Amino acid sequence: MIQATFYHAGCPVCIEAEQGFATAMNPSVYTVETVHLGEDKSRIAEAEAMGVQSVPALVIEGVPYHINFGASIADLK
Amino acid sequence: MIQATFYHAGCPVCIEAEQGFATAMNPSVYTVETVHLGEDKSRIAEAEAMGVQSVPALVIEGVPYHINFGASIADLK
Repeated sequence: MIQATFYHAGCPVCIEAEQGFATAMNPSVYTVETVHLGEDKSRIAEAEAMGVQSVPALVIEGVPYHINFGASIADLK
Repeated sequence: MIQATFYHAGCPVCIEAEQGFATAMNPSVYTVETVHLGEDKSRIAEAEAMGVQSVPALVIEGVPYHINFGASIADLK
């Protein structure tokens, strides 16, 4: 299985992206972990290290995909 | 099956998004059509009507998800 991580902050754009997008991934190939950076600020550094600049974002095999724009990482600190 | 449309313009960001992302969708639920707006300009208006402002973008059930940023739709005309 390939690990993917969906970073969000509970914003409306984030929720739409999670429901319409993160759940659309092939479940026989990908395991998607959802991380709420507003509630788990200890993982903000991890997201930044992956190249995540805003949420919602999905990181697949180390590559960050920013999906629309909800909030910048800087605003979550 | 749910129809999804991946709009791109052949840019490096587009290709990365297609390979890492559009192909990651659940094939038992989604049919993904790939449209190269640089080669098929007749579909730019359709993409705009869906709310696509830049490529690469994936439209799922009428909702546009802009993935990172490759080029604006305006620059493709």
